[in-house]
Amino acid sequence: MSGKLLAPDFESDIRRLRACARSQRSLSADRKNAKLRELAEALVRESARVLAANAEDLARLPATQPAAFRDRLTLNEQRIAGMAESLRQVAALPDPVGEIVEQKILANGLKVRRVRAPLGVIFMVFESRPNVITEAFSLAYKSGNVILLRGGSESRATADVIYELMQKTLGEPPPFLGVRDYDRDVVAALLQRKDLIDITVPRGGEALIDFVQRTALMPIIKNDRGLCHTYVDDEADVDMAVKIVHNAKVQRPGVCNALETLLVHEKVASTFLPKLYATTESVGLQWHVDPVSNQVLKGLARVQPASEKDWDTEYLDLILNCRVVKNLDEALQHIERYGSKHSEAIVTANETKARRFQDEVDAAAVYWNASTRFTDGFELGLGGELGVSTQKLHVRGPVGLRELTTPRWIVDGRGQIR
Amino acid sequence: MSGKLLAPDFESDIRRLRACARSQRSLSADRKNAKLRELAEALVRESARVLAANAEDLARLPATQPAAFRDRLTLNEQRIAGMAESLRQVAALPDPVGEIVEQKILANGLKVRRVRAPLGVIFMVFESRPNVITEAFSLAYKSGNVILLRGGSESRATADVIYELMQKTLGEPPPFLGVRDYDRDVVAALLQRKDLIDITVPRGGEALIDFVQRTALMPIIKNDRGLCHTYVDDEADVDMAVKIVHNAKVQRPGVCNALETLLVHEKVASTFLPKLYATTESVGLQWHVDPVSNQVLKGLARVQPASEKDWDTEYLDLILNCRVVKNLDEALQHIERYGSKHSEAIVTANETKARRFQDEVDAAAVYWNASTRFTDGFELGLGGELGVSTQKLHVRGPVGLRELTTPRWIVDGRGQIR
Repeated sequence: MSGKLLAPDFESDIRRLRACARSQRSLSADRKNAKLRELAEALVRESARVLAANAEDLARLPATQPAAFRDRLTLNEQRIAGMAESLRQVAALPDPVGEIVEQKILANGLKVRRVRAPLGVIFMVFESRPNVITEAFSLAYKSGNVILLRGGSESRATADVIYELMQKTLGEPPPFLGVRDYDRDVVAALLQRKDLIDITVPRGGEALIDFVQRTALMPIIKNDRGLCHTYVDDEADVDMAVKIVHNAKVQRPGVCNALETLLVHEKVASTFLPKLYATTESVGLQWHVDPVSNQVLKGLARVQPASEKDWDTEYLDLILNCRVVKNLDEALQHIERYGSKHSEAIVTANETKARRFQDEVDAAAVYWNASTRFTDGFELGLGGELGVSTQKLHVRGPVGLRELTTPRWIVDGRGQIR
Repeated sequence: MSGKLLAPDFESDIRRLRACARSQRSLSADRKNAKLRELAEALVRESARVLAANAEDLARLPATQPAAFRDRLTLNEQRIAGMAESLRQVAALPDPVGEIVEQKILANGLKVRRVRAPLGVIFMVFESRPNVITEAFSLAYKSGNVILLRGGSESRATADVIYELMQKTLGEPPPFLGVRDYDRDVVAALLQRKDLIDITVPRGGEALIDFVQRTALMPIIKNDRGLCHTYVDDEADVDMAVKIVHNAKVQRPGVCNALETLLVHEKVASTFLPKLYATTESVGLQWHVDPVSNQVLKGLARVQPASEKDWDTEYLDLILNCRVVKNLDEALQHIERYGSKHSEAIVTANETKARRFQDEVDAAAVYWNASTRFTDGFELGLGGELGVSTQKLHVRGPVGLRELTTPRWIVDGRGQIR
């Protein structure tokens, strides 16, 4: 226990949550879907209260916080409508619980099935975005799990109202528990309790992920950084490459599947880079470039030499690293060294090179002639995501409903023994 | 790094192993199968050398070590033949690498496939059994991974000879590394290196598992304890129940899928328990019983009252806990409280009760009218196992070839952007 203890009342609450996990396992899809739709209605109906609480949180936020932080914390009618819509979408997805992954009859007559079952108690530790509450809850609930939610203290008033709406909608015993104690020691104590929590999902900055990884005794699903590359080959369609790279970098730079480092074959650098530069000028993209790219782009605004540290930096901002490489091998080596195993892309007309890139790059998602921005639960048809996993255990890429379950073995016999 | 550092030479060795992981990912099944068969031949051909080294290890073993420990360390011609046969069996299994788990074309025309890929570098920490070396290696190798092996110092001479045979057979660079430094700090230092190791698999006693769980920064697949129950219902075929319980407890009591606690419906206790007792008398089974069972079995040899601690004890020995329950609910509650989520069984002729038991018991494998001893990679048709997982992430139950891979996303586009 490392000296950190949970308050007895709080421990009882979690034990009740754990007991609730048992009944959740066999809840019908209809019942779960109806509750998710009710919650969507409640959110919209009570949006004025949610927004009032959110205004309170925003008023308390120090002016020194960056605009991006304030933006993540902010709700408005449109964002609440988005939260409700997302709940309805999860309600419309197939229920993974009970799905038969494999079935066979063994030589000894045993009938064996592998059937998907919920993970149990999921502990979600997240930072400021209040819409994570309903998103994470809906995925956990629909997949037959219960969830313990611990957000950032900045959003406490907003979270309290949302927890209250969830509690009213879902009845007793509620299949979730919102942690209202914002002391970090509480998280540390919970991370020791593998007897109470089956799995922890940290979602936030590197410091949070690192803390959870070092402290947790139960398995975690990590939503780690995305240091994504796109390699533009000498056999690339240059216009397609401009469109893909522009999209991957500029459309939404603050997310994990956005591009950070561009690798360009030396044969196309002088045609491709100026074209790309022209399309990114209006958005004020900053370029951190290697010496060869610098030759091509020299004298242009917002172009500066890249440092060694840059290749290893996830900017999540309108900054692009750019390096010219001799060939595919050099691109592969660069990605092997600096990639975060999230999403990587090649733009080329040569299928042989594309397949080699897809085979050899060890990432959750590897694209040929498409933007890395597609690594997303909705985009890939999972209907939503609890995050994007960059670990190799359990799930690589978006964590959807199915990924919140595991197959277990159900075996029917007629008295078989060994 | 917690102050523990790896020796520079050793760190270079592991970096070479990691580099080797890249080429292993695309190795053909034919090549891997040929090497596994060659290794089987080498083991048999060089068995005299292996046995001489093993005799050296056994001679060094303190006489105070329990017989079971000595037995696990011991090799003989028959066990070496078994190791070779197991290598041939793994060679005969389908290669999971490249298996397409799912494929679809999205509305935007993106062609999406989920393709199985190796985990990468597997760190296997195990105790005395030297046959784990070839078993774990073969599964890791066949599934496209590389493996770092660290056994117990008791088997160091045996391990050295086996590592040498593996090295000769597999050539350079070898897709494995045997750790010959038996200082526990080396394991601790390795468990911090998530940059070098993708996943750790501890296999051994509770102290080892606990140490790895508290120290490792990378994901682990835990081979934890099996505190398995069998519930004999009032609608059970009593003779079938005797056969199943006898097998689950007696056939090989030292393994994790063996029975520890028997739960019996009160209506059949007086007929079932004496019959079972009669079949277990010759093997000297010790009974730890609750007061009601004690009424039925009183005065018989080797029957003693169970303590509260007994219900929570994995004996791995010829000792059986026995408790009479009022009904299925009480059995379910007992298993919920004391079970280790490994293997649980119900014996009944009533399908409704069997299905309820299978639905509500949260274990990796749940049996109806069969022995818990079937929770095993070979028995369930996986061809082998690296262990049996009692965690809920990634895999529940036997860890076979497929479980040493994870699907990743391979996406083909024609210039799609978001």
